[in-house]
Amino acid sequence: MTDTDAVVIGAGPVGLFQVFQLGLLGLRAHVIDVLPESGGQCAALYPDKPIYDVPGVPRCTGRELTRLLLTQAQPFLQPADSTSADAADRGAPSSPYANVHLGQQVSELARAEDGHWLVTSDRGQQWRARAVFVAAGAGAFVPRSLNLPGLQDAVNVHFHVPEAGALPWSGQHVVVVGGGDEALSAVLSLAEDSDPARRPARLTLLHRRDVFQAEPDLDAAVRALIAQGRVALCVGMPTEVHATDAVVQALTLLTPEEAAVRLALDHVLIRQGMSPKLGPLTSWGMALERKQVAVNTATFETSLPQVYAVGDINTYPGKKRLLLCGFHEATMAAHAASAALNPGSPQHLLYTTTSPLLRERLGVA
Amino acid sequence: MTDTDAVVIGAGPVGLFQVFQLGLLGLRAHVIDVLPESGGQCAALYPDKPIYDVPGVPRCTGRELTRLLLTQAQPFLQPADSTSADAADRGAPSSPYANVHLGQQVSELARAEDGHWLVTSDRGQQWRARAVFVAAGAGAFVPRSLNLPGLQDAVNVHFHVPEAGALPWSGQHVVVVGGGDEALSAVLSLAEDSDPARRPARLTLLHRRDVFQAEPDLDAAVRALIAQGRVALCVGMPTEVHATDAVVQALTLLTPEEAAVRLALDHVLIRQGMSPKLGPLTSWGMALERKQVAVNTATFETSLPQVYAVGDINTYPGKKRLLLCGFHEATMAAHAASAALNPGSPQHLLYTTTSPLLRERLGVA
Ligand SMILES: Cc1cc2nc3c(=O)[nH]c(=O)nc-3n(C[C@H](O)[C@H](O)[C@H](O)COP(=O)(O)OP(=O)(O)OC[C@H]3O[C@@H](n4cnc5c(N)ncnc54)[C@H](O)[C@@H]3O)c2cc1C
Ligand SMILES: Cc1cc2nc3c(=O)[nH]c(=O)nc-3n(C[C@H](O)[C@H](O)[C@H](O)COP(=O)(O)OP(=O)(O)OC[C@H]3O[C@@H](n4cnc5c(N)ncnc54)[C@H](O)[C@@H]3O)c2cc1C
Repeated sequence: MTDTDAVVIGAGPVGLFQVFQLGLLGLRAHVIDVLPESGGQCAALYPDKPIYDVPGVPRCTGRELTRLLLTQAQPFLQPADSTSADAADRGAPSSPYANVHLGQQVSELARAEDGHWLVTSDRGQQWRARAVFVAAGAGAFVPRSLNLPGLQDAVNVHFHVPEAGALPWSGQHVVVVGGGDEALSAVLSLAEDSDPARRPARLTLLHRRDVFQAEPDLDAAVRALIAQGRVALCVGMPTEVHATDAVVQALTLLTPEEAAVRLALDHVLIRQGMSPKLGPLTSWGMALERKQVAVNTATFETSLPQVYAVGDINTYPGKKRLLLCGFHEATMAAHAASAALNPGSPQHLLYTTTSPLLRERLGVA
Repeated sequence: MTDTDAVVIGAGPVGLFQVFQLGLLGLRAHVIDVLPESGGQCAALYPDKPIYDVPGVPRCTGRELTRLLLTQAQPFLQPADSTSADAADRGAPSSPYANVHLGQQVSELARAEDGHWLVTSDRGQQWRARAVFVAAGAGAFVPRSLNLPGLQDAVNVHFHVPEAGALPWSGQHVVVVGGGDEALSAVLSLAEDSDPARRPARLTLLHRRDVFQAEPDLDAAVRALIAQGRVALCVGMPTEVHATDAVVQALTLLTPEEAAVRLALDHVLIRQGMSPKLGPLTSWGMALERKQVAVNTATFETSLPQVYAVGDINTYPGKKRLLLCGFHEATMAAHAASAALNPGSPQHLLYTTTSPLLRERLGVA
């Protein structure tokens, strides 16, 4: 259990700026994201595409914006120290910061009797805080799966290419599912592993059509592997899973010609991109309006006391799902929380430019 | 009279971003500021001080932020073409953009019978638009004067150092009023004019105390001129103006020793910085709350239809006078105006990253 002033759910652009604004106001925050890296949609959906409408940033890619926001929040990020890491953090994707927790989905939000909030992740890690900031965007980014019974709990169904050193697939038949960049780049990296002993014995690319939606270079490289016979292309829709003891043995496919074909395999690697799922947060008791969290625009508080919602996840009259709106919301929420947590203390607005206190917190005094 | 979609009153940071957001939505804007340059408080009050809390901009000075916002708005700024400039613009400080009008204070806002708004400046220039965005900050920046009867209309009282070529003060006694950077740098530039024939015959620095509030280098340079006898330092508070036919002949000063001293002079140059004055906008009929313009947070519309208020000038529950809040407000106001001006047409939110229409407007298609 980690005690902190604030927990931020979601390390997207708005969650990262939330940590910065809380830090300026002297509030320590822990931020949690299910993705293996921070940056939310910017990092996961359009890392290389340019954004033109962040004020004062005439052009930056999704990845560059993430880096700028991390740099800005730096004074409030604690460098990770592996010896002191919370036991529950081990095994999760490594995070460079002790207060940024990656690869964990927040599953529960509950109120303790003393009014603190308890935040619990699907890895069992817990945080206790007086204020919670839901910066969950369109929801937790999880890999898109196939909607078939028997896949969910199978031990030989994967969503990520294992790290090179840990590649356990030599001598096996691996079926990669998908037709976009993620699937094709997985095929390429498996087929061209520098150590031939680690390459799968058989590699099949399974896609519902004989057309890919991928970068032209990637498309061409995979087509070449198929032409050389190093990768088998299998066109069809999976309709049934044949599994024994949580191990998938084969898939039944429906081909474009409406034939049913059985594809035996050792491992399935599903690479159909990520999709956001609102998931657990709909059950935390916050008032929702059409799947968004309703907030008050003076404070960005939800219907739960000292639980704020900022960025794409919230809704209010006029709401626009834009980065710059989320930044405003995070700022307003930080000020509202600071006032609520420090009743009676004066809440003068300070400028980073002129305030010795803020400059000290920023480390530029 | 210039016809346009929108007029933005104030070319501070929020007014500049307003032009950008209107441009993204296909609305042409003209922006007007009383200052000789754009950037509002950032440019006028803290051009060299660093700002740390503009999201995605870990550090920039007031001047740098102004430059970034101008670069961002570039696709929607029309390069000035002197031959086509509106006659009323001539004589005003030159602006590099045909739709950015500097050195003019907006004095009137009136509604025509057809529902258009007529915006009039103190130089008599007029614009006609369907929507008006009041981005007036703390008000129009005007030079701080001395609060003495007889000064207001005197022809030999100045607030700016004349341009080098137009310097009319050789052979005269010039009294510079003030003790900050503005006053001291005016003394320095007059005393060290490269053409000795153009230097004032006598130069007096008038300040209420024998202590300056200026950059150390500037302070030292002016102290050296005083020690050399090239500048006279006169310590006292002006209490009376002696003028004949709108020409100031002398000032009476009260010295720290409470003596009344008469200072004869040919020209007064008042250099006590700028201060914002709400001025005319309080009489335009917008509902005000404690000297701020009240707005609806869904649209940032004022009590006047299709007149929006954004940035430091407005107020609403929770309002924080911060740059990033103004940027949000300008964005919301632009969307609200676009919906009001194009009733019935769909208002889908488009991303600069992905929308061919926005990319075409930005010139990056
Ligand atoms: C292709 C594309 C182009 C865009 N272009 C622009 C543009 O030009 N300008 C602009 O202003 N906006 C643009 N946007 C929108 C912008 O990306 C979003 O407004 C922004 O990402 C919202 O930030 P956020 O932090 O609120 O949410 P997100 O970026 O969605 O981040 C939310 C994070 O929370 C995590 N999360 C959610 N629930 C949980 C949970 N229970 N446990 C753990 N983690 C959780 C998610 O995994 C995610 O990482 C674009 C979006 C897309 C998809
Ligand atoms: C020393 C200092 C440090 C600051 N530091 C920070 C910081 O670190 N972070 C932060 O977010 N904010 C900071 N601020 C606040 C920030 O500068 C303001 O929020 C911002 O400038 C507001 O922008 P604006 O465009 O609304 O108004 P302004 O910058 O005030 O610009 C308004 C413009 O409108 C013009 N105008 C007004 N009326 C008229 C008229 N009738 N006709 C013509 N022109 C008119 C004015 O001349 C002016 O140029 C600081 C402010 C100061 C003074």
